[in-house]
Amino acid sequence: MFEVKHRDGLARICSFETAHGTVETPAVMPVINPNKLVAPPKKLKEQFGAQIIITNSYVIKQSEELREKALKDGLHEMLDFDGPIMTDSGTFQAYVYGSVDTNPEEILKFQKDIGSDIITILDRFTEPEDNKELVEEKVRDTIQRAEDAVEEYGRSETHLSLPIQGSIFTELRKDAAEGISKLDAKAVYPIGGVVPLMEDYRFKDLAEVIIASKKGLGPKGPVHLFGAGHPMIFSLAVLLGCDMFDSSSYIKYARRGDFMFPTGTRKLEHTYEITCDCPSCNGRSVEDFRGMDEDERTKLIAEHNLRQMFIEIRRIKQAIRDGSLWELVERRCRSHPQLYEVYEILKKRWRFLELYEPRSRKSALMYTGRETLDRPAVKRVQRWIMNEYQPHFDEPTFLFKVNENEKPYNRHLMFEISEIFKRTEADLLLSTPIGPVPMELDEIYPIAQSIFPRGMRDEELVNEYLEKKGIDDLLVWDGIESLSSVENGSSGNLDVMRVKTVANYQFGKGAGEVLTDGQLRFVKNRKGRVKNVILDDEHILSVRHYDGFFTLKTEGAEILKDHFQAPYLRVKVDDDSAEFNRKGRNVFSKFVLNVDEDLRPGDEALIVDKNDNMVAVGRMFLAKDEILEYDTGMAVRVREGIEK
Amino acid sequence: MFEVKHRDGLARICSFETAHGTVETPAVMPVINPNKLVAPPKKLKEQFGAQIIITNSYVIKQSEELREKALKDGLHEMLDFDGPIMTDSGTFQAYVYGSVDTNPEEILKFQKDIGSDIITILDRFTEPEDNKELVEEKVRDTIQRAEDAVEEYGRSETHLSLPIQGSIFTELRKDAAEGISKLDAKAVYPIGGVVPLMEDYRFKDLAEVIIASKKGLGPKGPVHLFGAGHPMIFSLAVLLGCDMFDSSSYIKYARRGDFMFPTGTRKLEHTYEITCDCPSCNGRSVEDFRGMDEDERTKLIAEHNLRQMFIEIRRIKQAIRDGSLWELVERRCRSHPQLYEVYEILKKRWRFLELYEPRSRKSALMYTGRETLDRPAVKRVQRWIMNEYQPHFDEPTFLFKVNENEKPYNRHLMFEISEIFKRTEADLLLSTPIGPVPMELDEIYPIAQSIFPRGMRDEELVNEYLEKKGIDDLLVWDGIESLSSVENGSSGNLDVMRVKTVANYQFGKGAGEVLTDGQLRFVKNRKGRVKNVILDDEHILSVRHYDGFFTLKTEGAEILKDHFQAPYLRVKVDDDSAEFNRKGRNVFSKFVLNVDEDLRPGDEALIVDKNDNMVAVGRMFLAKDEILEYDTGMAVRVREGIEK
Repeated sequence: MFEVKHRDGLARICSFETAHGTVETPAVMPVINPNKLVAPPKKLKEQFGAQIIITNSYVIKQSEELREKALKDGLHEMLDFDGPIMTDSGTFQAYVYGSVDTNPEEILKFQKDIGSDIITILDRFTEPEDNKELVEEKVRDTIQRAEDAVEEYGRSETHLSLPIQGSIFTELRKDAAEGISKLDAKAVYPIGGVVPLMEDYRFKDLAEVIIASKKGLGPKGPVHLFGAGHPMIFSLAVLLGCDMFDSSSYIKYARRGDFMFPTGTRKLEHTYEITCDCPSCNGRSVEDFRGMDEDERTKLIAEHNLRQMFIEIRRIKQAIRDGSLWELVERRCRSHPQLYEVYEILKKRWRFLELYEPRSRKSALMYTGRETLDRPAVKRVQRWIMNEYQPHFDEPTFLFKVNENEKPYNRHLMFEISEIFKRTEADLLLSTPIGPVPMELDEIYPIAQSIFPRGMRDEELVNEYLEKKGIDDLLVWDGIESLSSVENGSSGNLDVMRVKTVANYQFGKGAGEVLTDGQLRFVKNRKGRVKNVILDDEHILSVRHYDGFFTLKTEGAEILKDHFQAPYLRVKVDDDSAEFNRKGRNVFSKFVLNVDEDLRPGDEALIVDKNDNMVAVGRMFLAKDEILEYDTGMAVRVREGIEK
Repeated sequence: MFEVKHRDGLARICSFETAHGTVETPAVMPVINPNKLVAPPKKLKEQFGAQIIITNSYVIKQSEELREKALKDGLHEMLDFDGPIMTDSGTFQAYVYGSVDTNPEEILKFQKDIGSDIITILDRFTEPEDNKELVEEKVRDTIQRAEDAVEEYGRSETHLSLPIQGSIFTELRKDAAEGISKLDAKAVYPIGGVVPLMEDYRFKDLAEVIIASKKGLGPKGPVHLFGAGHPMIFSLAVLLGCDMFDSSSYIKYARRGDFMFPTGTRKLEHTYEITCDCPSCNGRSVEDFRGMDEDERTKLIAEHNLRQMFIEIRRIKQAIRDGSLWELVERRCRSHPQLYEVYEILKKRWRFLELYEPRSRKSALMYTGRETLDRPAVKRVQRWIMNEYQPHFDEPTFLFKVNENEKPYNRHLMFEISEIFKRTEADLLLSTPIGPVPMELDEIYPIAQSIFPRGMRDEELVNEYLEKKGIDDLLVWDGIESLSSVENGSSGNLDVMRVKTVANYQFGKGAGEVLTDGQLRFVKNRKGRVKNVILDDEHILSVRHYDGFFTLKTEGAEILKDHFQAPYLRVKVDDDSAEFNRKGRNVFSKFVLNVDEDLRPGDEALIVDKNDNMVAVGRMFLAKDEILEYDTGMAVRVREGIEK
């Protein structure tokens, strides 16, 4: 039902089916006021690309005319829209007006009766001002109502919308999300009660709330950020794992003459230039907008605002497929200083984000400012070098201050490396923008696949490294004379060091040793770069040209399997699947029994059967908890099956 | 001829006249290939808003057919364009192909003959690889050719285009610009030889070259960044004082299937989503673009690219009028790490930028990252506090750690201030995101008119301040008990401190003392905020509600004039002007004899006649060197004339 098609960290392009068609997420749902259609839903679909809309069932129910029409003709006919429609329940009205004239059962049944595709329970809106006790009570009630709804409608065609409440208490949010996620239903998971946070620009709190909810929800989806309608925050929310947005703000803002942009809002009265070429804006001047009839202006600005939302969603999807969503978010967060505050949370919560973080991306990591250095992709490799990496020799360490425009660094240091290695086995250390990097790691993502400003270095981290590794015998490379004090000994070999270190980083401690334990030989390309690693005449590893990591050949995989005890590096499948995987077919989530918790999307995985017999080697597409959660979709892309 | 209409620092919205109409800058000139019109110039004007186009006279001259047509019908008829046309001379062809089949006289005469509105001399292209001697020679030749051109065409209707060369030698660029700027002609000033820098993303060098050229050129304009056609760098170039751009890249990129955006370029082959709603993109899918005929695709993408340029120019104009251009540049510079490197230059050259920097802006300063702290607007007030500000008392200094969302700070500290001032006269210091700020300055730009992330503080700067001012007796405010050790003495008055300190910052050392030397009285608004300052029953100052600075009443101005010797704070006008200014009419550049070098755009100025008699009080619109340079336009907006 909910299938991941593309992903980057927690961000994902997914699809799910409704009775009125497929929705591809991330998606923004225009809010339709059933009393006053500013833009006809049909037009939103045809001209703006809206896949799904949302309207308020409580507003319909309260109007005799609308209620009878909706009950008689159905919601889709009433709104003249043949795509999926989600309905809200009146929760927000209860928050704004204090109470509503309905109850959980009635409003749910009404939504079902008028033919809504996604029906929302009447949850209890948790406000930032609520004290903890009240929030606990509201969360309990909300979960209870969700349980009742699942009991009543859990087996129907209709999706349930089961909001997560909890105000700004992150533990309560997590608990609420866990409570909701346990329920077995075809559902959408809104994160509710966040409108006051967004209205007050409390984006830091918003980010914490999303993260806490995602922790509790796990990979369940689609996750809907209820009431989020400013394109400024879409990319951040998607980065943190949200899939859906809804917005009535496009109209509200338009009524005030406010043009929305992903970088903020601009009032017509402060507008001197029309900085947009969308069909509403193109060819129109500021004077045109000022001079026109108010209804016409509201309509045009509302359409402009909607288009900005849809475009931002498309930018986000493009960025997910590019692997550049972090860059987009880092730029967007500079739209307002209170959005910038979110960095603090991204930095603080990097360990959670790292669980979904691919070890490599399609496009280079681009520096946008010092905040880039706090990304999980950077922290992970920094930490590994600092805490896990073992220098190879007791001999001196040579330190090179490298240049950003000379990457991969080793290819610009070929003379220096060869001169050193003629005389001695030595560790070679690079002082880079992300701190110390052993030369052997200099071709892997993101070390080679990144662009930083030239001249950037983190020398403090280099010093920390030297101290931590107890390196006293440091020689800072400064031309060939740096070698004058070196005594001739055995000669070094960077290729061997590279295999050991990359394997240890990629597969875990000790992998480098077992994968080189024997007669080692390399197949190189014309430029002298290692393509294949041959151990005792068996091709065990290939080097991926685009990110410097290894792909496992079955012989290499067998070595790792012998070395590492189950469940490490394994994806365990049931017997039916094993048969197919042996033939080289991909592993589907449904048939997976267990996944090692250290495996990340994009990692090499050993596919094993119940008895830990290896049946195939492949590459993780999903994260562990996604595989275990989802019933549909590919989990591991198999590269080689192992016939019995 | 060249008139500044709006400005923000070195950035400006200007206009200049040509024989074929007015051009408003910043402007981008689409490059028209006379051999192959991808989009008809007429369409560019009508549908895209192109005010001016540029084409290559050498290319026309080399084609017999085009040459004869151009000579017979004129350039405007040949291109079917009735707006201004600038022509290039073949310099770039000489750079690309080594030589050209023309000479400086011939190509200039040809441009004149075919009726170009702006004719470019055949300057000598300086390349980044050229050695200094060669660059010197090329600069000399270029200046010589400019002199010859001015002699021949300086008094004609046609504008001359006189490029500044000098490669990456900033001193040579400055000298070249000075040499060119001395020539008395109706001219456009291209910064030439920068295409190789832009092609190699050497934006740091580019920024240095622009700054050096601007230093030499002074306020002359329009300044044209020759060959700059990527919208990614427009905002930076405008911030540094460039007015015009030209681009053939919109077509070149389109031929390769490259979509330009102000944040970078995206290849069609890597495009999964169309992230634009311009008339070329709206309603088209990636598949549509991939499937269409190549000519059609090139045309559509070229039009998209052009639209992106025009929109970015409009965004820049909007930002200049908003006072938010720095924010735009800080966001744009994160489009590529090598564009980010430009910050280093903006930081290094802040003293030059500060000469044009207004003391206040219409919109709040918005933090986009730590780079914001290096803006001239921030540095100026930081430096003044650190180096010029004198604490008032020997009594203790109270330090407050303030919150960003409680601004102006003093209004959230009214209780604390009143409790302190009941007991003692004390200095009140705020620890803010920009470092230490005396409480009395907390309502001026950018201290109150700024938004920073909450919780930001620069405590290092606070410590530096305490040491510098020799403050030992520091009490960090921590509730009312902070007062327990305070002995009761005289009571403090923040309003008096504010008048003194703001006046010293705004008008110079000693201003605060002379403006408060007598019987001081305040007129306050309903909220208790000072509106007017009355000294010995004379209304001397009013407080600007939006930025906390003073406007000078004539009585206040007289006090300052008596205190500060000429030419300080003065704009000296000739007798004809003086007559008019006494009647309250604005000061026009043409009639200004001298301007104090400390006056910045937006500053209060004393208008005096040749004998230093004050004739009016007003507010600077232009910078000093602009006033002295320009023959047209307003220099100072007069608020009060002083009748004899």
